[in-house]
Amino acid sequence: MEFDLIELIRQRTTQPRDDVRLGIGDDAAVLAVPAGQELAVAIDTLVEGVHFPPGTAAADIGWKALAVNLSDLAAMGANPAWALLALTLPSADVAFVEGFAEGFAKLAQSHRLALVGGDTTRGPLTISVAVHGFVPPGKALTRAGARVGDAVLVTGTLGDAAAGLHALQQSLDDGDSRAGLREFLIGRLNLPTPRLSAGAALRGQASACVDISDGLLADLGHICVASGVGAEIDAALLPRSPALMALYDEASALQFALSGGDDYELCFSVPAQRLADVQADLSRLGCGVTKIGRIVEGAGVRVRSTDGEWLATDRPGWEHFA
Amino acid sequence: MEFDLIELIRQRTTQPRDDVRLGIGDDAAVLAVPAGQELAVAIDTLVEGVHFPPGTAAADIGWKALAVNLSDLAAMGANPAWALLALTLPSADVAFVEGFAEGFAKLAQSHRLALVGGDTTRGPLTISVAVHGFVPPGKALTRAGARVGDAVLVTGTLGDAAAGLHALQQSLDDGDSRAGLREFLIGRLNLPTPRLSAGAALRGQASACVDISDGLLADLGHICVASGVGAEIDAALLPRSPALMALYDEASALQFALSGGDDYELCFSVPAQRLADVQADLSRLGCGVTKIGRIVEGAGVRVRSTDGEWLATDRPGWEHFA
Repeated sequence: MEFDLIELIRQRTTQPRDDVRLGIGDDAAVLAVPAGQELAVAIDTLVEGVHFPPGTAAADIGWKALAVNLSDLAAMGANPAWALLALTLPSADVAFVEGFAEGFAKLAQSHRLALVGGDTTRGPLTISVAVHGFVPPGKALTRAGARVGDAVLVTGTLGDAAAGLHALQQSLDDGDSRAGLREFLIGRLNLPTPRLSAGAALRGQASACVDISDGLLADLGHICVASGVGAEIDAALLPRSPALMALYDEASALQFALSGGDDYELCFSVPAQRLADVQADLSRLGCGVTKIGRIVEGAGVRVRSTDGEWLATDRPGWEHFA
Repeated sequence: MEFDLIELIRQRTTQPRDDVRLGIGDDAAVLAVPAGQELAVAIDTLVEGVHFPPGTAAADIGWKALAVNLSDLAAMGANPAWALLALTLPSADVAFVEGFAEGFAKLAQSHRLALVGGDTTRGPLTISVAVHGFVPPGKALTRAGARVGDAVLVTGTLGDAAAGLHALQQSLDDGDSRAGLREFLIGRLNLPTPRLSAGAALRGQASACVDISDGLLADLGHICVASGVGAEIDAALLPRSPALMALYDEASALQFALSGGDDYELCFSVPAQRLADVQADLSRLGCGVTKIGRIVEGAGVRVRSTDGEWLATDRPGWEHFA
C-alpha cells in the first residue's frame, strides 16, 4: 500500500530542517530557499540489472540511489538540502523498503538532507531521486570554465567501481585470500562517497568540475566540450587503489581507471597559480587529490602512456544506449 | 545514447525563463526562486501497464507524466516553474522520445514551465517527473484546514477517466455510433487537465484542497484524516459528464465517480461565507465547480444515495499495492 511504504521511509529518514515548511504527506512539499542562495537540482535513476546487479543489498541500493545524486551536487559545489524519492517496486516488500530506507537514511543524515516527498508505485525495480542543494549566486561550478594551461585533477582513486563490478561478475572462491581486496572494490561500487565537502571547497577555486559517473575519459570529455578545450592526461599519474593494483594487471587497471564508470570522484580543472592551495585545502578535508594532466588547445582527451606514447582511446566510457 | 535523447527532449521543450540560471547540460541545474516565494515540489511516477496501458500514444504519455505532477501543484495553489524528467526506456526509440517530448512540451509551454534537467536510462518503460512551483509564504493549500460546516466542492466532472479506462479495455466496434463519447472519456484518461488556475484562485479561499488521483472517496478521505473531520457527500450532486451518463448505467457511473482514479480534478473545502464568491471566481476562469457535500464532525467519508440511504463505501479507491 503506497502510503504505508512512504510513511515507513519517512520514519526512517527523519531529518528536521527549518527550511522544510511542509514535508511528506500532502500533495507537494513546501520549502524555503534561504535568502542569498540559488538552488541546484538534479535527478538520476537506478534500474535493477542496469545500474546494479539483481541481488544487491537493499541498503546498498538506498545508499547508492542518493549517493549518485549527491555526487551531482558535489560537482556543482552545492550544499545538499532536500530530496524527492520515486520508488518503483515489483511488490510491497516491507523488508526491502526497510533496508532501502536504512541505507538512504544513513547517507542522508550524514549530510543533514531531508526527504521531503515521494511516490511509491508497482513495477520493475527502478529508483529515481531528485536532489536539491544551495549555492551562492553565480558561484556554482560548471563544466564550462576550463582554460588552456589549467591543471586537471581528480579526487580519490579511479577504476575501483568498475573493477568491483568485474569482481562481482566472477564466481570466485569465498575462501580466497584476496576476498578482502575484492570486498573493498565492491564496496566502492555499491557505496560510493559523494565528494560534497571537496566540491564546496572548490567553489571559487576550480575553473570547471564534473563528477565521474561514466568514466574519466567520458566525463573529462564533457568539460572539454563545454569549455571548448582539449585535455592531456598522463597514465602514470592516475591514482589507483592498492586493491585495484593487487587484483588486476596494469592493462586492466588502466582500462578501469580511464573508462570505468561509477567511481563518483570529482574531476576538475584549476588555474596553475591556485594549484598548491587547492591541493592543500582538499587534503585538509581528508580528500585525496591528484594532478593527472592539463588543459590544452584543441578538443578531446588524449592519454600519454608510461612510455610516452599516445594511447588509442576509442572507448570513451559507459553509455546506456551505446 | 543518453545525451542525444536528453538533447532531443530539450530542443522540443525549450521554454526560456529568467529564473533558470543554468539549464540542461551540466551535472545539475541552477535556479533562482523569486524573493518572497516558497517552493512547492512533488514527484510522481508512471509505469507502463500500471498507470497507462501498453500501446498508449507516446505524446499522451508525455502529457500525462507532466499533468499528474502539475495537478499536485494545483492542489497546493502553486504556480508551476520547473520540471525534472527521469525517463527509463527499453531502447533508444527516437520516435517514442519525439512523441513523448511533443506531448510533454505542449503542456509545459501552456504553463511556461521549463524542463531544467533529466536522466535517460535503459529499462522497463517508467517515467518520473519532479515539478517545482512557487507559492507565497504560508499561503500553500494543504489537506489539513477543513472545518466542520465547510462546504465540499469539486472542479469539473468525476468518473470520466475510470470510465475511459473501462472503455479502452472493451473491444468495441470502431464503427459504433458512440465512438465519439468513448473518445471523450479516453481523452479524459490520457490527457488530464491540471487545474492550475483554479488552484491558484483558491489560495486564501479554500480551507483544504487535494487533487483526485486515487478517487473521490480516497482523496477526500485524505482531507478528513489530515483535518481531523468527517465528510458527507450526496450522490445526487456529483458532477458527471454527458458521455459518462450516456455510456454507463447509474450504478456504474456512480461507482466511477466515487472510486475511479485519474480524474485530476480538485476536491476542496470552503467556509460557508465564502462559498458564493469561490464558485463565481472559478466559473469566471472557465472551471466548472460543484458543491457535493459538507464537512462534519467525526471521521471518514459517507455518501448519501439519491433515495436518502447511506451507501456502503468499502472500496475507497485505487491503491497500487492493495
